Amino acid sequence: MEKESDITESGPRTVRDLGEFALIERMNAGRSFGGGVELGPGDDAAVVAAPAGRYVVSTDMLVQDRHFRLDWSRPEEIGAKAIAQNAADVVAMGATPSAFVVSLGCPAETPVTFVDGLADGMWAEARRAGAPIAGGDVVRSPQLVISVTAFGDPRGRAVLRSGARDGDIVAVAGRLGWSAAGLAALSAGADSGSDAELFADVVAAHRVPRPPYSAVLELPDGTEITAMTDVSDGLLADLSHIAESSGAAVDVDAAAVADPALSPVAAALHADALGWVLTGGEDHAFAATFAAGAVVPPGWRAIGRVCTGSGVFVDGAPWSGPLGWESFGGGE
Amino acid sequence: MEKESDITESGPRTVRDLGEFALIERMNAGRSFGGGVELGPGDDAAVVAAPAGRYVVSTDMLVQDRHFRLDWSRPEEIGAKAIAQNAADVVAMGATPSAFVVSLGCPAETPVTFVDGLADGMWAEARRAGAPIAGGDVVRSPQLVISVTAFGDPRGRAVLRSGARDGDIVAVAGRLGWSAAGLAALSAGADSGSDAELFADVVAAHRVPRPPYSAVLELPDGTEITAMTDVSDGLLADLSHIAESSGAAVDVDAAAVADPALSPVAAALHADALGWVLTGGEDHAFAATFAAGAVVPPGWRAIGRVCTGSGVFVDGAPWSGPLGWESFGGGE
Repeated sequence: MEKESDITESGPRTVRDLGEFALIERMNAGRSFGGGVELGPGDDAAVVAAPAGRYVVSTDMLVQDRHFRLDWSRPEEIGAKAIAQNAADVVAMGATPSAFVVSLGCPAETPVTFVDGLADGMWAEARRAGAPIAGGDVVRSPQLVISVTAFGDPRGRAVLRSGARDGDIVAVAGRLGWSAAGLAALSAGADSGSDAELFADVVAAHRVPRPPYSAVLELPDGTEITAMTDVSDGLLADLSHIAESSGAAVDVDAAAVADPALSPVAAALHADALGWVLTGGEDHAFAATFAAGAVVPPGWRAIGRVCTGSGVFVDGAPWSGPLGWESFGGGE
Repeated sequence: MEKESDITESGPRTVRDLGEFALIERMNAGRSFGGGVELGPGDDAAVVAAPAGRYVVSTDMLVQDRHFRLDWSRPEEIGAKAIAQNAADVVAMGATPSAFVVSLGCPAETPVTFVDGLADGMWAEARRAGAPIAGGDVVRSPQLVISVTAFGDPRGRAVLRSGARDGDIVAVAGRLGWSAAGLAALSAGADSGSDAELFADVVAAHRVPRPPYSAVLELPDGTEITAMTDVSDGLLADLSHIAESSGAAVDVDAAAVADPALSPVAAALHADALGWVLTGGEDHAFAATFAAGAVVPPGWRAIGRVCTGSGVFVDGAPWSGPLGWESFGGGE
């Protein structure tokens, strides 16, 4: 209610009306920093606690019409997505998110209400990940560009991609292929037809990934996790990074990874659900390897094995198709 | 020599030819990480040491045609500027730079040699600041966008903007007004005429700021520095931040801050050299306050006093003109 009353005919309508400093103040108004953030916005830099004497850092940039579309997503969804994909990288190191910083580029004519929505979405997802937004930058840009840097506190040692060993169990937490299915539905215009309900869940998954942070952050003590990554480029692409870093091969069991919930969506779009699951990016599920013989922890499901050799296999056969997403591929 | 031999007719010519992963690999090839970076590029996140149990973080975004122009600056200069302005923020907290992460957005048709130059410029400035580039992201974007996040290790307590007290000495380290003079010369096309030599130094200063890191990092032990900031928006704008945060006023001595080296440049351009010095941004000098009676340390010069009241004064009179730069002002 209070927010709406700011957006009157006489109030600031665009980012240009408001100006940089007032915009930053507005984005931060009423937010609770705290936690590991010892000094929030307002000085040359923020100060963040690092109780382990080290910290984990990841950064990603999202560009309008490349990573999101204004006609497909609300600003709250775009903000949440930007935070989620960075938080997932930090959690995939076995670290607890401690802070984010955000740089935002936007046209001067961007409505202030749009930036309000973006900030709300960022803060909502940051809270889900357990950490505040400690600072940032706002600049003028021909289209929206969002750059997020996420920090985490590694509990014990960081979990790298390179620790997988022959015989380890490959397991995932979270949904796979849902974002790709949602993108396919949106691209086909299928989200707004008579079957809209069928597509609602996958379209929502494309708009805002939901990394299952707690499946990692609440792993039982003593869980012997040997390697981990988040699934951002596609399951096979990301498993290929584990395989290559670990000097091993990974064999995925197609039946174990298939998601029956995607079948009606795939049928309606004449698409291949297993393709979405194996190579679709942006779900930000977690893929990890556990020591052979380990009990797969709650929230995780076994989907394959680490074996000797190199590369990625599906049901024992080398995978010859594309593994996933490439930043500079595709059309303009 | 080795680099040149990669750029053959049959080699990758553009970022699209090379692809995301090979581009990242190329940008990191032959670089020495080390120092506080415990894990560099290649996993979901980097790992950086924080021996003080806390770290300082700052982030800035640079957008083509807003913060740099391809016809005015070489890629090495753009890369150096992006790192310098973030390193200056970290140093202005009294912290030693420990790492940077960089997100780069660029068109698929960007020549690989351009990205080589950008990366070389970034690494050269990062080395000047004493820290490596620990990781980053490369995405496709309609124009160049560079987002840098810088980290620092605070030696003792961070130096905030809020500690200035009545009677403190205001001092600066580094050049003021040079970047604004260079921008004026470039805007007037004056850098390429018969007086080009006259403008060469200020144009160079605009292309690549040279923050005097060592003036801060090598302050004598026991120096009682009460507040500090880097001069990014303009001296008066940045001093107004110190004044406001500290609940005090700042009075600048125009004669002490004037730079005679800018006079011939200003005369040739029919401009006001003192205006450049007082309100020109992007030099990334450091402005600080020292306890009353302190000896101003080497590399610093006294330019004014902290006094009671609020706001910014020049020679005892309230300053009524613009204080500096505004992100959403100006034309397209």
